[in-house]
Amino acid sequence: MKAVALGGGHGLHATLSALRQVTDDVTAVVTVADDGGSSGRLRRELSDLLPPGDLRKAMAALAGDDEASRRWTSLFKHRFGGTGALAGHAVGNLVIAGLLEQLGDPVAVLDLTSRLLGVKGRVLPMSNDPLDIEADVVGLDEDETDVRRIRGQVAIATTPGLVQRIRLTAPNGRPAGCPEAVQAVLEADVVVLGPGSWFTSVLPHLLVPELHDALVHTRAKKVLVLNLVPQPGETAGFSPERHLDVVCEHAPELKVDAVIADVDSVPTPDRLTRAASALGARTHLAKIAAPDAAERHDPEALAGCLRQVVVETGVGGTGQWR
Amino acid sequence: MKAVALGGGHGLHATLSALRQVTDDVTAVVTVADDGGSSGRLRRELSDLLPPGDLRKAMAALAGDDEASRRWTSLFKHRFGGTGALAGHAVGNLVIAGLLEQLGDPVAVLDLTSRLLGVKGRVLPMSNDPLDIEADVVGLDEDETDVRRIRGQVAIATTPGLVQRIRLTAPNGRPAGCPEAVQAVLEADVVVLGPGSWFTSVLPHLLVPELHDALVHTRAKKVLVLNLVPQPGETAGFSPERHLDVVCEHAPELKVDAVIADVDSVPTPDRLTRAASALGARTHLAKIAAPDAAERHDPEALAGCLRQVVVETGVGGTGQWR
Repeated sequence: MKAVALGGGHGLHATLSALRQVTDDVTAVVTVADDGGSSGRLRRELSDLLPPGDLRKAMAALAGDDEASRRWTSLFKHRFGGTGALAGHAVGNLVIAGLLEQLGDPVAVLDLTSRLLGVKGRVLPMSNDPLDIEADVVGLDEDETDVRRIRGQVAIATTPGLVQRIRLTAPNGRPAGCPEAVQAVLEADVVVLGPGSWFTSVLPHLLVPELHDALVHTRAKKVLVLNLVPQPGETAGFSPERHLDVVCEHAPELKVDAVIADVDSVPTPDRLTRAASALGARTHLAKIAAPDAAERHDPEALAGCLRQVVVETGVGGTGQWR
Repeated sequence: MKAVALGGGHGLHATLSALRQVTDDVTAVVTVADDGGSSGRLRRELSDLLPPGDLRKAMAALAGDDEASRRWTSLFKHRFGGTGALAGHAVGNLVIAGLLEQLGDPVAVLDLTSRLLGVKGRVLPMSNDPLDIEADVVGLDEDETDVRRIRGQVAIATTPGLVQRIRLTAPNGRPAGCPEAVQAVLEADVVVLGPGSWFTSVLPHLLVPELHDALVHTRAKKVLVLNLVPQPGETAGFSPERHLDVVCEHAPELKVDAVIADVDSVPTPDRLTRAASALGARTHLAKIAAPDAAERHDPEALAGCLRQVVVETGVGGTGQWR
């Protein structure tokens, strides 16, 4: 039973933590448009390096439970202390960056580091090239309808304006999908998109042409997992149904089989059901927020919900779900 | 058959490359007084970190031959490009630095990274604390007999003056030997000291009291390997016999069984034999310079010479030499 999860950052970490409870064959497809923090510094310093942070976090979510895997995963997460040039860099980001400099091929680098961390499954970038996000944003000027073009993941994620639409830009023009990621989507039994920063981690996958086409044409059941709360900045004030509307706007050809949302995060279930129907999806509401932190998904609960969706949508595949 | 090699930098790398051809049980005991390059930057930035560079080089000399070991060893050696904050840092130094921040115990860190690199044998620091070297140097002032105190490995290694004597300083006063390194020396069948930067990589081992005492009292046969050429800076103009004299001056109680030197690097063999006798040692002259680079030892030739010395000095031990 092959599952593919697309996203980035903490949202993807949540999906992967849930999916690994459900099947052994999980592939993560990770956004590569991050330009902040340790990843952003590496990207600028090392001549347009693939940002490693989200790739590292995805590996951590799928890492092995044995002592050596736990030790290396913990080191990869460790950020240098002090007040110098290294302060704040995650060690794993530096290892991935060094390997990218040496080997060039991101897939080989991720396969190698995944073995070190005992990753169950596979972690792939959505593109082998670092990408940039550009957004049309309103509400930044005196005339609130003036559209401004905002560039970069951090700028978009923190804009006080209203994001209307995003585009991807690549160093060589058109963003190219990572072939192994495209193949994984085509061969999957179930594909999960989201949760996560909607404009900067989730939607970018739909804007890589090969990945978009694979998502449209795959025989996999497609599941969208909504966020628990709108993110300050890029989706401030966005209702759950507005999240689905922007998916439609960015990928009109995409059909989805199921939309999963936390029952306490949906003030108007009717509207969500209507928006989901426009995508071809049935809505699944459940308690999936972590009890201790309302802004984080509970992996067990999300796993339970994914299991149910799989049964109800009649996912095929040769293996078994746990 | 247990062999211990003490030193640092390229000299230790040469001894280890030779010893691994001779026995499977090699322990490297590495100087931790480096304050230059990537190690020096890490040491200053990360609140007096153990300098990782020489430890990494010793692991590389003993690393495994399989593909994964070679891959990680190559990454550990890789230095970041670019012109930014990371430029010139070896990735392995950053991995060791991160683990030292996380785990604290250098022996645990080295055992863990050694497993990753498939190290045959063990790499240990001479002390678990970073140390500093201080030297009495003459010839720096108009009155050439004025003694100046020079501090730090880089400063001493490059002084235009004449080094007379060195001392070690430690963060907590007296330099403490790494207990596992002391034990390894006590349990060894053969101990090899040198080649290498004489004042900054070789002699420091004799100035750690526990290590000094272990070297004096061990039942192991003790072998000194001389450099091929005097090093510009710290031993400019030093004859081979002068190298032995400074060993006597820094550790008068130390007896040595054999002195190995390259036949073409010894202009006056009689004098060397006399200086060696003062240490209790027999002199072994052989062609041990690499044919392609006169300033580097040839591991095969050095291994051959070590084998011969072992036979002639009647080294005991339970295992076999190859």
